[in-house]
Amino acid sequence: MIIATDRAKRPTDFIRQPVPPNTATVCPFDYGNEHKTPPEVLAYRSSGSRDQPGWRVRVVPNKFPALGIEGELSRQGEGMYDKMNGVGAHEVIIEGPDHTKTFGDMPEKQIEEVLWAFRDRVNDLKKDTRFRYILLFKNHGEAAGATLEHPHSQLIALPVIPKRVKEEVEAARLFYELKERCIFCDIIRHESAAGVRLVTETDRFTVLEPYAPRFPFETWILPKRHESHFEDAAAPTLENMAYILRATIRKLDKVLERPAYNFIIHSAPVQEAHLPHYHWHVEIIPKLTKVAGFEWGTGFYINPTPPEESAKFLREAGLG
Amino acid sequence: MIIATDRAKRPTDFIRQPVPPNTATVCPFDYGNEHKTPPEVLAYRSSGSRDQPGWRVRVVPNKFPALGIEGELSRQGEGMYDKMNGVGAHEVIIEGPDHTKTFGDMPEKQIEEVLWAFRDRVNDLKKDTRFRYILLFKNHGEAAGATLEHPHSQLIALPVIPKRVKEEVEAARLFYELKERCIFCDIIRHESAAGVRLVTETDRFTVLEPYAPRFPFETWILPKRHESHFEDAAAPTLENMAYILRATIRKLDKVLERPAYNFIIHSAPVQEAHLPHYHWHVEIIPKLTKVAGFEWGTGFYINPTPPEESAKFLREAGLG
Repeated sequence: MIIATDRAKRPTDFIRQPVPPNTATVCPFDYGNEHKTPPEVLAYRSSGSRDQPGWRVRVVPNKFPALGIEGELSRQGEGMYDKMNGVGAHEVIIEGPDHTKTFGDMPEKQIEEVLWAFRDRVNDLKKDTRFRYILLFKNHGEAAGATLEHPHSQLIALPVIPKRVKEEVEAARLFYELKERCIFCDIIRHESAAGVRLVTETDRFTVLEPYAPRFPFETWILPKRHESHFEDAAAPTLENMAYILRATIRKLDKVLERPAYNFIIHSAPVQEAHLPHYHWHVEIIPKLTKVAGFEWGTGFYINPTPPEESAKFLREAGLG
Repeated sequence: MIIATDRAKRPTDFIRQPVPPNTATVCPFDYGNEHKTPPEVLAYRSSGSRDQPGWRVRVVPNKFPALGIEGELSRQGEGMYDKMNGVGAHEVIIEGPDHTKTFGDMPEKQIEEVLWAFRDRVNDLKKDTRFRYILLFKNHGEAAGATLEHPHSQLIALPVIPKRVKEEVEAARLFYELKERCIFCDIIRHESAAGVRLVTETDRFTVLEPYAPRFPFETWILPKRHESHFEDAAAPTLENMAYILRATIRKLDKVLERPAYNFIIHSAPVQEAHLPHYHWHVEIIPKLTKVAGFEWGTGFYINPTPPEESAKFLREAGLG
């Protein structure tokens, strides 16, 4: 990653494209439209029965899945190429019945239930040993790739360990071999002491701007206690995570005027036992710059905002 | 890359955002505004003298460079992290005086001169052995990251070999070790014979949709003769490349309604001698989909358009 200080940018230098408030249109994720989605695979309910209103959080298969759950996994040659069929699962976590709420506006309790749904779905799906990796993520706002307004996250279960995950886990393993310490635990300690890239801390989580961010205001949320798999998080961790996630999104909303963003949970491959070298965490990428020819050609990123500056703006935004 | 056939998309299914025709505003790249850019490092002229009108193609340092050319390259530790200073060069190739032309509208001769400027600048800059890689690319349209309308490309010289280039060159080397053949030469032969992903061919170039495209309508242009470095291309190759580049952009403009796109020359690291296993080529990425949480989390890409379909549309678009 290249920090281009000649181009140093303050939050107000970016072209602001605030995600507009959701308008109450006819939406397949609203109460009463449960028949417009595939049947639910999980719901936490206050009332009602399956595929009826009364749920607080509801998980359904994606109607247009990137991968389908049926069939045996197979690999084959095709001419000079290699091919694999698309066995996997693609689910949508509907974060609440209210069409207009975002992670920044929702009650903490509701976010906590979303996190429980994440955890429950991963623990259920990982029983299917065809799934080697399960990705949890959220695209918020059209610029970040969201195609539906209603607050939702997504889960994709994959029959292979993705390239980027492999690289991250492998790099962490090499560090561990050398030092016999987890690199993420090191980063948490280092940043907590240094303070310049620190955004905020609780007793269970550290929020920071990473040393080499690919994107301006890229923000990481790391659990302080070493744990490789998100789906093993204990109840008090999820409770505290809901608080810190909401607080962090509110900071970003304040400093960057409700930006579009991607939110990704980085976690260890699901079929692996606890790893001493990998540490699950959340990465939030506000969508402020365009990925262009340089990034596609190199895999490097030009970032006009040093992390020390973005951290300062986020610290000063308070916790309101 | 995942081809999601449940989502199979024809060109008309994408949200069209045609790049609007350039409007003649006051522009630092127009005739008469030469003083608004840093002094030129190269120009092909019909008349006039340095930094005066009369040029046909003009190359200037970027006014807001991602990297600066001054200073010694140094690597240092910073706490637990590694840091390198940003030695490099960032230049803009102004493709002609006419503010309103694009690669699809320009005369072939003009594109040929742009390619000569690419070649001349790389051959000049590679004498500076601090530069390990030189990237040539173009961002066309705001959605693809262009910030100025006037037709231009960019060159970035880097003190390191980028991650993505390393991966591509290394994968090609492994294939060569196994087979003693260049994988790109194999692809050209295979696709030319198979035809399903072929867009068009000349005696010197093959245009195809790759077997595993990350993006819909991702298009590659490969020289038929094995050559690892773009900057070694002979005069007839550049002449033919201008023809095929213009024809390919016109096809994309026709099928996708003048899309925004990134154009990237993939070439071998400049300080390496001729490589038997690497083969320079052009990749064109029309900007039709959004990179979102799934792609950031995995490094995989979900592509709704099979390459056989996009190839068919481009073949049928004719060569007009």
